[in-house]
Amino acid sequence: MLKPPLDLIRLALAEDGAEADITTLSTVPAQQQASGSILTREAGVIAGLAIAAATFRLLDDNVSVELLVQDGAHVEPGDVLAHLSGPARSLLSAERVALNFLGRLSGIATLTARCVQVVEGTHARILDTRKTTPGLRSLEKAAVLLGGGQNHRFGLSDGVLIKDNHIKAAGGIAQAIEAARRTAPHLLKIEVECETLAEVQQALKARADVVLLDNMDTHMMHNAVELIRRDAPLVLIEASGNIGTNGEKLRAVASTGVDFISLGALTHSAPNFDVSLEFA
Amino acid sequence: MLKPPLDLIRLALAEDGAEADITTLSTVPAQQQASGSILTREAGVIAGLAIAAATFRLLDDNVSVELLVQDGAHVEPGDVLAHLSGPARSLLSAERVALNFLGRLSGIATLTARCVQVVEGTHARILDTRKTTPGLRSLEKAAVLLGGGQNHRFGLSDGVLIKDNHIKAAGGIAQAIEAARRTAPHLLKIEVECETLAEVQQALKARADVVLLDNMDTHMMHNAVELIRRDAPLVLIEASGNIGTNGEKLRAVASTGVDFISLGALTHSAPNFDVSLEFA
Amino acid sequence: MLKPPLDLIRLALAEDGAEADITTLSTVPAQQQASGSILTREAGVIAGLAIAAATFRLLDDNVSVELLVQDGAHVEPGDVLAHLSGPARSLLSAERVALNFLGRLSGIATLTARCVQVVEGTHARILDTRKTTPGLRSLEKAAVLLGGGQNHRFGLSDGVLIKDNHIKAAGGIAQAIEAARRTAPHLLKIEVECETLAEVQQALKARADVVLLDNMDTHMMHNAVELIRRDAPLVLIEASGNIGTNGEKLRAVASTGVDFISLGALTHSAPNFDVSLEFA
Amino acid sequence: MLKPPLDLIRLALAEDGAEADITTLSTVPAQQQASGSILTREAGVIAGLAIAAATFRLLDDNVSVELLVQDGAHVEPGDVLAHLSGPARSLLSAERVALNFLGRLSGIATLTARCVQVVEGTHARILDTRKTTPGLRSLEKAAVLLGGGQNHRFGLSDGVLIKDNHIKAAGGIAQAIEAARRTAPHLLKIEVECETLAEVQQALKARADVVLLDNMDTHMMHNAVELIRRDAPLVLIEASGNIGTNGEKLRAVASTGVDFISLGALTHSAPNFDVSLEFA
Amino acid sequence: MLKPPLDLIRLALAEDGAEADITTLSTVPAQQQASGSILTREAGVIAGLAIAAATFRLLDDNVSVELLVQDGAHVEPGDVLAHLSGPARSLLSAERVALNFLGRLSGIATLTARCVQVVEGTHARILDTRKTTPGLRSLEKAAVLLGGGQNHRFGLSDGVLIKDNHIKAAGGIAQAIEAARRTAPHLLKIEVECETLAEVQQALKARADVVLLDNMDTHMMHNAVELIRRDAPLVLIEASGNIGTNGEKLRAVASTGVDFISLGALTHSAPNFDVSLEFA
Amino acid sequence: MLKPPLDLIRLALAEDGAEADITTLSTVPAQQQASGSILTREAGVIAGLAIAAATFRLLDDNVSVELLVQDGAHVEPGDVLAHLSGPARSLLSAERVALNFLGRLSGIATLTARCVQVVEGTHARILDTRKTTPGLRSLEKAAVLLGGGQNHRFGLSDGVLIKDNHIKAAGGIAQAIEAARRTAPHLLKIEVECETLAEVQQALKARADVVLLDNMDTHMMHNAVELIRRDAPLVLIEASGNIGTNGEKLRAVASTGVDFISLGALTHSAPNFDVSLEFA
Repeated sequence: MLKPPLDLIRLALAEDGAEADITTLSTVPAQQQASGSILTREAGVIAGLAIAAATFRLLDDNVSVELLVQDGAHVEPGDVLAHLSGPARSLLSAERVALNFLGRLSGIATLTARCVQVVEGTHARILDTRKTTPGLRSLEKAAVLLGGGQNHRFGLSDGVLIKDNHIKAAGGIAQAIEAARRTAPHLLKIEVECETLAEVQQALKARADVVLLDNMDTHMMHNAVELIRRDAPLVLIEASGNIGTNGEKLRAVASTGVDFISLGALTHSAPNFDVSLEFA
Repeated sequence: MLKPPLDLIRLALAEDGAEADITTLSTVPAQQQASGSILTREAGVIAGLAIAAATFRLLDDNVSVELLVQDGAHVEPGDVLAHLSGPARSLLSAERVALNFLGRLSGIATLTARCVQVVEGTHARILDTRKTTPGLRSLEKAAVLLGGGQNHRFGLSDGVLIKDNHIKAAGGIAQAIEAARRTAPHLLKIEVECETLAEVQQALKARADVVLLDNMDTHMMHNAVELIRRDAPLVLIEASGNIGTNGEKLRAVASTGVDFISLGALTHSAPNFDVSLEFA
Repeated sequence: MLKPPLDLIRLALAEDGAEADITTLSTVPAQQQASGSILTREAGVIAGLAIAAATFRLLDDNVSVELLVQDGAHVEPGDVLAHLSGPARSLLSAERVALNFLGRLSGIATLTARCVQVVEGTHARILDTRKTTPGLRSLEKAAVLLGGGQNHRFGLSDGVLIKDNHIKAAGGIAQAIEAARRTAPHLLKIEVECETLAEVQQALKARADVVLLDNMDTHMMHNAVELIRRDAPLVLIEASGNIGTNGEKLRAVASTGVDFISLGALTHSAPNFDVSLEFA
Repeated sequence: MLKPPLDLIRLALAEDGAEADITTLSTVPAQQQASGSILTREAGVIAGLAIAAATFRLLDDNVSVELLVQDGAHVEPGDVLAHLSGPARSLLSAERVALNFLGRLSGIATLTARCVQVVEGTHARILDTRKTTPGLRSLEKAAVLLGGGQNHRFGLSDGVLIKDNHIKAAGGIAQAIEAARRTAPHLLKIEVECETLAEVQQALKARADVVLLDNMDTHMMHNAVELIRRDAPLVLIEASGNIGTNGEKLRAVASTGVDFISLGALTHSAPNFDVSLEFA
Repeated sequence: MLKPPLDLIRLALAEDGAEADITTLSTVPAQQQASGSILTREAGVIAGLAIAAATFRLLDDNVSVELLVQDGAHVEPGDVLAHLSGPARSLLSAERVALNFLGRLSGIATLTARCVQVVEGTHARILDTRKTTPGLRSLEKAAVLLGGGQNHRFGLSDGVLIKDNHIKAAGGIAQAIEAARRTAPHLLKIEVECETLAEVQQALKARADVVLLDNMDTHMMHNAVELIRRDAPLVLIEASGNIGTNGEKLRAVASTGVDFISLGALTHSAPNFDVSLEFA
Repeated sequence: MLKPPLDLIRLALAEDGAEADITTLSTVPAQQQASGSILTREAGVIAGLAIAAATFRLLDDNVSVELLVQDGAHVEPGDVLAHLSGPARSLLSAERVALNFLGRLSGIATLTARCVQVVEGTHARILDTRKTTPGLRSLEKAAVLLGGGQNHRFGLSDGVLIKDNHIKAAGGIAQAIEAARRTAPHLLKIEVECETLAEVQQALKARADVVLLDNMDTHMMHNAVELIRRDAPLVLIEASGNIGTNGEKLRAVASTGVDFISLGALTHSAPNFDVSLEFA
């Protein structure tokens, strides 16, 4: 289960004015109790259920929540995810924030799972990127894990990924790799972004640990993979760039034999997952 | 221009490890200067450009940014939004966070503008909802405005919107409206969610200020609008529920004569807008 | 009961150095237990009792508090509000902060109740204003509710109140109302501040939802009320400006038939309510 | 000048929704400039003028403020305190928060100055207490200084003040003083609260540095002062307890020859000082 | 026991990435339980044990901690300080942060205890200074207390300590003392730093409450003490300046008869105390 | 130059009561200007000079600071590091906090430089550890870099370091490495802690990227290095465990041919570097 980010939940409740829900305060008696269920309206993978539960309980610790599935569960439309009971006011006032978390994170997990399924049977693993919502990176990356994906580096401090501008600044691929090897922490591998086979060859020659094939068509990518496997069998291969999350292109890229495919859309364009709270 | 949320930008930079960008620190000399441009790769409406600029400058106030368009501008693929110049390291280390803000907010503005265009020529105005990203509500609602939409209430404290569970708790539509009128601040109107014509009639009888037609098919919605216009011409009408952002349903709903259409997808499912930073 | 604002209580305890109470630490043994009561020394309405309790418990959760009355209770001098027991050091070190909250908020509730009593039998309801202590607005407005008053808008985002400078900027009352109607969220009513009957007439003509009679003498106010009731029976009427909290003027204003009287003094000049902690 | 508490000002602006001032945003054009003056409506001592200025400038640094007086100035009704100019929207949206600070702090300074005047010609200096608004202690104590008062200890960590419960816990006045002397930081004096002459004698015998005469009538207080001056001429004397801020009692207490009179009302019950912003 | 500084512990856990301990997450099963002990590897005084315990429990409240000694305990190498049990992952991921607190604070307590022992039999008490780690002052000063030392003032607001530059600015020792007596809170004593006997004489003449003998050799210090005891027996005497924490100089200074010796090294140069977590 | 951590500096100034420096406020006139220099009293490497400068300027931006050396400079006793000028009060009130940062960080840089010098001529590079002061890790690790050392992983999320308990939990070295390779981000290398030659052999067999020789005597370490260089020339070698910072042991370990030596004492036991502020 994703650990609830208490400060962010508090911020979201404040942002929504959940403690000053005028409609509820004026129409629902303080002592009225209620119960309800969180239901899915589509198929997918759940992420953020404990966060949704914590949202209700942060607003009012008299709310009881029973979780029926775990984060990571594959669900069908109409599945019940949790039962809630407690003061009616608190259920109503926390509902929107709770579902906002659950819908967004499950949306990411579900899209990830769909991509993982597309590449099933190939060698490729699905990676996220740093294209996440400001302030929500750790949640969104955790949702990718729950969907069966794998995390690329969390941020700029935990991996070396040399791109074209670094190469230009350093004076060439070899110089950039050499500079990184000299000063980066010794537990970090060095990945180099390549757009041509010539660049791939230079990266291998300079002993890159990982090669990123960026924006290549699948034909060139196929050749690149072949080249790398032949000359440097221990080197890892990642593909990225306009691959998309739902179609043939993704499958074709996976079929070239790359180790990893990174997809910005997992976190920056996942549609919301449809969940609702139904009162008993 | 959207006012840059400095604390959130700082959080996002920290989250990304922008001050410990190992790749850049090891491959790019400290004194190297660079310049570049932020470019669009698709058509749409820009939101968050000053935020992107502030991101670079928060990391390093030696970066200069010249904005070529304003938030709210309609752009075409390849348009240049801003020129940047300054220490190469800072441009590289802040790039991702800056573009994450710009891509997400422009995505929302662009989707909103598309919906506004769909309903053009009708009376209907496009509204957002409270289905926003936790922590980013004010930014996302501002992006909706830039796209030509209008904001629904910001949170639970600045409007009365009576839904089915409030009605149940209060003992009926009339009782709920009466309770709200008695205790809500006197500057707030009272809106009532209705799913049937009978509910609409009750809401009018109890003198609701606004009626929300929720999850009605367009036929019933048409009848509801007619009924309201006849019996209570000052009452405002909002439509919501599974209307979608891109197709016929939206146009059909607008054609019924409602005043407002609220769309959760504007903020919870807008795809990222594609922008990039190209170095000179 | 007012919900304890934990962060503010922590700030207040820190500000008071409650964890470094040198006198207590040096004179009272760590293991010594004590008990005591919170007593009133005057008649009034209680607000902030749960906050006072939370203050003791935030400093030391070994303190037990039994509340004998609820926020909103009308009390007489000498009434016991709560029993406390626990480590003597903690009772002594948290005392001042706890009573600071309780004294200030009960002061506001008590002053409000007095004003409500003054207007008893009239139609008028007592409103607060935005003239609150920086950082304490939600607490102070809640204390007004407990005293029997009603809240005006919480801040600038949850109501439209057009004043003279807005009218000047917009080019007239009609233009200002029209501009507000076009862009303000559709759940907000529009109130216009008027100082003359001519302005009242313009506001009615432009279909203001609420009219604020500001700084009028009671004679003019009487005429304004009459005019509004005759021409626009659905329009709400608020009075404000130098009305004072304790005397004839307040009663006279209420007797003109206005719906609301707003009083800055409720929150900006309420005298402290006298409470004390007596040890057993 | 009181140094502006930037975080608290930001909080107060946020609390007031100053960046989402719907009325102003919809009625005042973005590019409109305005100017105005902050005026007093009563006589008193100013405190918080730089804070008010900072409030406008924190909302919008295009606002220019020219201060015509300094904090601590004695002013008459109608005096102009500052000129403001800048975007009309920003002047309007920040006005209330700026005046809330200025009104509250000047209220405290003014009440303090009045008390100082009452005791003029006597030896007594006016002290504040720890009965301050939660979160505003340093501002309120600074306002007391500006009014000509002097600060008692800031909190529980910067002074030893032994009260009845400490004495009981320690087993007597002598034991309490001895315990404090053994463990309190060596730069802190030891003050003992006494309600009878017998207690005063014990305190002197145990070599208290300061004696607090609490809740004594002026006759007993007179005798206590005489006793202390005779037996322990270096000991300082403070009076407190139901002395009030405006009348004969205060003068009478001062006339007994005490060194200090501490008054909770300076900070917990000071009426707001009336200031306004008038646009040109 | 030192009260755990929850915010700082959370910061330290975040800084260490304790919730994203990749090694542990990938090698240790989620459900695996473990138990272990915190052991000393050297002799000394313990400080921060409850903080270490709270560190484990803040990361995961399923961890149980049994403390076998209290803060302030004198321990020998190999002593067991606490038993821990709970999820193996949590024990491993919180270990480093917990030990960082415990090692640093026990290091300070241990060094303090050693200095206290050096001066045993003399009149002198060991004081800390304001030379503490930014952000950790209250913890470090509490550790000094646990080691048997005493605290000097916490900060610049809770004591008057007049140094050479203050004297220069005020125009002389007498003027500086007089100015401080006039405006400082009446519960604060006035200490004056003196480097010569002449300065000591001036300080006494101006009735300083405390004299600080700074950077004197032990011969001059001896004379200064004699002078003060003869002329002003109630004045307190503190020594400081290059005294060191471990040798003859400290003992010699104590033997001059001073009341206090303040040592910056207690907090700015205490070596870490060696503790470890051994799994069962 | 180390980038000043503004929030931490503000916290440290608040902790020290720098805005309520009673001594300075009462003895130094507000308008008095002063100038001074920061001087070293010992030889070493400077770290934190820009932080010290920022401390003065955060308290009062009227202070001017001219830096004469850069962070990383090797200095001799008596060297002038910076000139300061501005309001005398501000120089005096910020002095201690500024020097606390500078002394601690320069202490770390200086100790690191000394260790780097000890291993000069060998292949070994000096690494820090995660044994840092809670809340100051990034500053302390930056100081290590300035002293010529290199950083080990920043925290638990940016490197895989498998220790004995991970091995036990995973069921053996091979299983632990395999598990890490399957789930850790693909840019992280895998390091394994070994205490015997047998463990080293298992680590090599399982294709660890880095081997940590922990607590070995130099003889065994010598053999381990030989074994690794022969069988796995690309594998990196780190040594740790009771090596100490100042003597023969460090040199002997370096001479075994390891690539890295990690030293906890660099950050947890560095003595303060002696700097002072002398007024002109």
